[in-house]
Amino acid sequence: MIRILKCGEVADEDILARAIPTADVGSVVAEIIADVRKNGDAALKKYAEKFDGARLETLTVTPAEIEAAMAQVTPEFIGILEKAAGNIRAFHSRQVRNGFIINDEPGVVIGQKIIPMDRAGIYVPGGTAAYPSTVLMDLIPAKIAGVREIIMTTPPRRDGSIDPAILAAARVAGADRIFKSGGAQAIAALAYGTESVPRVDKIVGPGNAFVAEAKKQVFGAVSIDMIAGPSEILVIADGRTNPRWCAADLLSQAEHDTMASAVLITDSMALAQAVQAEIERQLPKLERSEIARAAIENNGKIIVADTLAKAVEIANAIAPEHLELCVDAPFDYLDGIRHAGSVFLGRHCPEALGDYFAGPNHTLPTGGTARFSSPLSVDDFVKKSQYIYYTRDALRKAAPDVAGFARQEGLTGHARSVLSRTEEKQ
Amino acid sequence: MIRILKCGEVADEDILARAIPTADVGSVVAEIIADVRKNGDAALKKYAEKFDGARLETLTVTPAEIEAAMAQVTPEFIGILEKAAGNIRAFHSRQVRNGFIINDEPGVVIGQKIIPMDRAGIYVPGGTAAYPSTVLMDLIPAKIAGVREIIMTTPPRRDGSIDPAILAAARVAGADRIFKSGGAQAIAALAYGTESVPRVDKIVGPGNAFVAEAKKQVFGAVSIDMIAGPSEILVIADGRTNPRWCAADLLSQAEHDTMASAVLITDSMALAQAVQAEIERQLPKLERSEIARAAIENNGKIIVADTLAKAVEIANAIAPEHLELCVDAPFDYLDGIRHAGSVFLGRHCPEALGDYFAGPNHTLPTGGTARFSSPLSVDDFVKKSQYIYYTRDALRKAAPDVAGFARQEGLTGHARSVLSRTEEKQ
Repeated sequence: MIRILKCGEVADEDILARAIPTADVGSVVAEIIADVRKNGDAALKKYAEKFDGARLETLTVTPAEIEAAMAQVTPEFIGILEKAAGNIRAFHSRQVRNGFIINDEPGVVIGQKIIPMDRAGIYVPGGTAAYPSTVLMDLIPAKIAGVREIIMTTPPRRDGSIDPAILAAARVAGADRIFKSGGAQAIAALAYGTESVPRVDKIVGPGNAFVAEAKKQVFGAVSIDMIAGPSEILVIADGRTNPRWCAADLLSQAEHDTMASAVLITDSMALAQAVQAEIERQLPKLERSEIARAAIENNGKIIVADTLAKAVEIANAIAPEHLELCVDAPFDYLDGIRHAGSVFLGRHCPEALGDYFAGPNHTLPTGGTARFSSPLSVDDFVKKSQYIYYTRDALRKAAPDVAGFARQEGLTGHARSVLSRTEEKQ
Repeated sequence: MIRILKCGEVADEDILARAIPTADVGSVVAEIIADVRKNGDAALKKYAEKFDGARLETLTVTPAEIEAAMAQVTPEFIGILEKAAGNIRAFHSRQVRNGFIINDEPGVVIGQKIIPMDRAGIYVPGGTAAYPSTVLMDLIPAKIAGVREIIMTTPPRRDGSIDPAILAAARVAGADRIFKSGGAQAIAALAYGTESVPRVDKIVGPGNAFVAEAKKQVFGAVSIDMIAGPSEILVIADGRTNPRWCAADLLSQAEHDTMASAVLITDSMALAQAVQAEIERQLPKLERSEIARAAIENNGKIIVADTLAKAVEIANAIAPEHLELCVDAPFDYLDGIRHAGSVFLGRHCPEALGDYFAGPNHTLPTGGTARFSSPLSVDDFVKKSQYIYYTRDALRKAAPDVAGFARQEGLTGHARSVLSRTEEKQ
């Protein structure tokens, strides 16, 4: 049964704690990466056989395979994919930034350009964690950013095929090339390139412990989005909230993963008890009830706080991935929420709405990293470049200050590079 | 003597190669981090004595020490600091972003907020690499971002004091608290907190191999700016450029570090030879001539290309930290520069102008990471948070699609969380 903790009666650590699994796979992953760097495609095929049980002739997904996938999924599902993609595009289009230029002083022009990356790599996990929604969420921002080529990789099934729903989502979102490779080996291929898989500039997408470790190890040679942990929901609800809705929302997160975290904070002990009972009632009806049960035991929690203000304070300290505000006037609280990946306002806004459909991204910071990390966005697929232009006269005016600063730092060569230009006309 | 390589006559690898030092300090750094997490301030004091030769009573820099520093530096230098800080503020103020809100469909509000981080940590190296310019460049964007508290740490000198120029820069830029701690131990303190040093959300700033490794190891528990490598300049110059200016610019970078990289690309063999001779003439006159000489031998290079278009292509492949365009119409080339941290346009724009004064940041991606990384900016000190609000009617409209998507992914709990709201009114 989900635990009820009363604020003030239990230690802060107990309120804030969440169990996060750690796996020591560093050396295995390092070996796989070295192997892929050395043996390229051959290593990718070897691991596809070893880990995925698939013997591959070629790593590339062909246009015919994509056409076939489009025919295998229902037209209804393609319709839903397209509606969701439209909403995701509408939201992410607003993230596109312009450069700027400043020309306030005579002869001085400085500015910043926004430049899309040449190539992005989207990793899509296989098995039961193969989510077409993630394909949309990871690919569309790259597309809107103007990335020149978008590569997707995903592990093959035993027969060498890819889940048609995944391929359909990739087609709707606009992947340029798709490869059959998963795990640490796919991350290595994206980071360093092989004969088939081109080297990319940024790798995004969730994955298991091997994928997470591989992203950590290639970080620096390539940019990565984040190291994603188990999914998290935090629901703040007042006493007027329907306990069945609260329970359903907590369970929607719990069914993801046995280490997922589902927390309710409320100022009503009555609601706490009603939700506790309701979870027990709903749990057995879920298709993934064993997973959800384990998550509730591991990281489920109902915290009873004196006030909703206190609830917000606790939420900020937890810095959850998803935060629901099931209260009367949810916008009153928005300003006070400093640390959360995505905020769901009001009683008619279950997290699932954001997972699939509303438009904001569902690739979000977990494990408290919302303190300093952001949802995946168009920003992840661009970089900035600065520029400076001075005329000869503008340089002459600035030269004494620049040279003075350089000499203070003992860098006389820096001073010389400026002064040599004031001594000679051209 | 700096080498001259003729495009087409040498392999691409030779043109693109740059030697980047690697140090295997992983286990030493891991030990230091574990020690700081366990022993806090006591560990910081122990390492200050061991590595910096300083016996410290307290780790905190007092207001009196800062006042004394302001009196120790010249008023002229404070004037230069203030002018530079003004230019840096003007540029970075333009990077401040607004959130957005979309309300295009009845009952649907979605948006993105930009939220400053609670606390940032600025690392400032000691010794000959103690640059007040870096204090300005790292601190001012955090200040403009609206970070609530800015912490600075820097290693003490043997007598326990801090270089007054560093403290003066910190005062001008607006550090909130300053601590005497350097190396991997300072990074550990910023990442996890000690009795004196508060835990921060983001660590920025350059440092030696131990600092770089420590930043890599704490990444994930905290956000970091980048792993900075040796500094780099790439000058593209046509035959009408003064060879003395080219040589001075290459040497201004070479004097930083024996592994710094200084590369000229030109379409004129005459200029190549003149710059080669000029470097030999200027080198002995530098105060740091030994360092510069080593850098020129290690990573100095003059590449002769057939055309300036080819020069730009090579520059994009190198993706340098600093790129000078010493040509007649430099803005004509700006569009073609895809990968460079900072671009210096025209013959009167030496890199030193950007290092100290013009306003754009001087903390820039090195080692080819300009492919995917950006100059330090206000963006480094904020994070985004999304929000979604749906009315009951809006949810009812979206419910079939959301539930359909969830069922496709086998997540019936997700579907339930939406459908339970359409079944019951509240």
